[in-house]
Amino acid sequence: MANPTAAMLVIGDEILSGRTRDGNTHYLAGQLTQHGIRLMEARVVADDQPAIVEALNALRTRWDHVFTSGGIGPTHDDITADAIAAAFGVGISHRADAMALLQAHYDRAGLEFNEARQRMARIPDGATLIDNPVSTAPGFTIGNVHVMAGVPNIFQAMVASVLPQLTGGDPLLSQSLRVNRGEGDIATLFGALAAEFPDLSMGSYPFIQNGAHGTNLVIRGTDPGRIDAAMTRLCALVGQE
Amino acid sequence: MANPTAAMLVIGDEILSGRTRDGNTHYLAGQLTQHGIRLMEARVVADDQPAIVEALNALRTRWDHVFTSGGIGPTHDDITADAIAAAFGVGISHRADAMALLQAHYDRAGLEFNEARQRMARIPDGATLIDNPVSTAPGFTIGNVHVMAGVPNIFQAMVASVLPQLTGGDPLLSQSLRVNRGEGDIATLFGALAAEFPDLSMGSYPFIQNGAHGTNLVIRGTDPGRIDAAMTRLCALVGQE
Repeated sequence: MANPTAAMLVIGDEILSGRTRDGNTHYLAGQLTQHGIRLMEARVVADDQPAIVEALNALRTRWDHVFTSGGIGPTHDDITADAIAAAFGVGISHRADAMALLQAHYDRAGLEFNEARQRMARIPDGATLIDNPVSTAPGFTIGNVHVMAGVPNIFQAMVASVLPQLTGGDPLLSQSLRVNRGEGDIATLFGALAAEFPDLSMGSYPFIQNGAHGTNLVIRGTDPGRIDAAMTRLCALVGQE
Repeated sequence: MANPTAAMLVIGDEILSGRTRDGNTHYLAGQLTQHGIRLMEARVVADDQPAIVEALNALRTRWDHVFTSGGIGPTHDDITADAIAAAFGVGISHRADAMALLQAHYDRAGLEFNEARQRMARIPDGATLIDNPVSTAPGFTIGNVHVMAGVPNIFQAMVASVLPQLTGGDPLLSQSLRVNRGEGDIATLFGALAAEFPDLSMGSYPFIQNGAHGTNLVIRGTDPGRIDAAMTRLCALVGQE
């Protein structure tokens, strides 16, 4: 079975200004790999509706799934829900079920469910809610787009709600060999191995430790037997030299 | 003066598989902000020539500068230089000055300057080299595109070589106020403040510490007097409530 594909869209000026380092893409990448979904590209755009709409429409027409992160809070700079509605050409309004969830949450907390907080119940028409066990304000799925919070622990909880509902593919597996040789020493044999196993993906990642060059050689694929065969061959090639 | 704009293009399967967490975008974002260049978007693509070419051509025609990270090493999966040449429609060959730099480097190290390592001297026609004080293999600038290594300390050294040569704008400044109140409590007054100062950008970033909600309110712009005025007003508004 071919693996489903996905893209990540990170929304937020704070990432582009250097204030905040995005960690949600890395988290999602690992989760998708385990679930057999290939993350094909990732983008970061500003809190700017035309930029969000353009990126979202490019990604959702190209890949099986799009995950977004950021911009669904109560403040004026949280414009993701409106941008998603605009991208899909649908309306957006305060939805009754989301209002009820949030009303109950703020009642329990003894906090006013004010106009700003009610913004978090604005959901594009036709979307389904994504559960937020951390702070209640829901994400939503519309079409093949999963809209989630930027705060990392909420993002992660939402990924945990969404992923089990998606059809995965064969798990994306990898094995790696760490060698105490520079990339340039190992490149020719590793390239030959990659040509021998065109169904696998091979990557070479150099490092320097205590002043000495080393390389991590990574073999990726979905067929564990083929990965084993390639790794056996790689070990033999490295040992021969 | 309007601030120049830029985009980041991260190239590498290892980022999309979740093996490696990209830190170069965050580093570049901070450096550009200090230099008065606005980072407008960032993308991550796979080690795949059509994907690299398409993203690069989209970004270089839209923004003043594009910075790339990754894929310029000696192994078969290092395809960035060829992809950049293809995007610009120019040739690529082993360039004499890059060959000489690398030959001298490997002579000093007592290592063979083999065919794989010679790949790192392949530079698109018309490019200028970017100095690599860490491991010699150069990056290059072609048109408005700056092609740099993915290994973080080499990427950072290359940014340090390139940035002083670029015309910056007024520094992008920010001030932030940390309040021990949830975003929903502060959203209305902060939105009103943003409307009062349309020339500034304001962002609200919630956090939870020891179970209590708090928010960082950030005001960004290029005119320090305006930022001071907005911050004074913000402190007054927060204090009144």
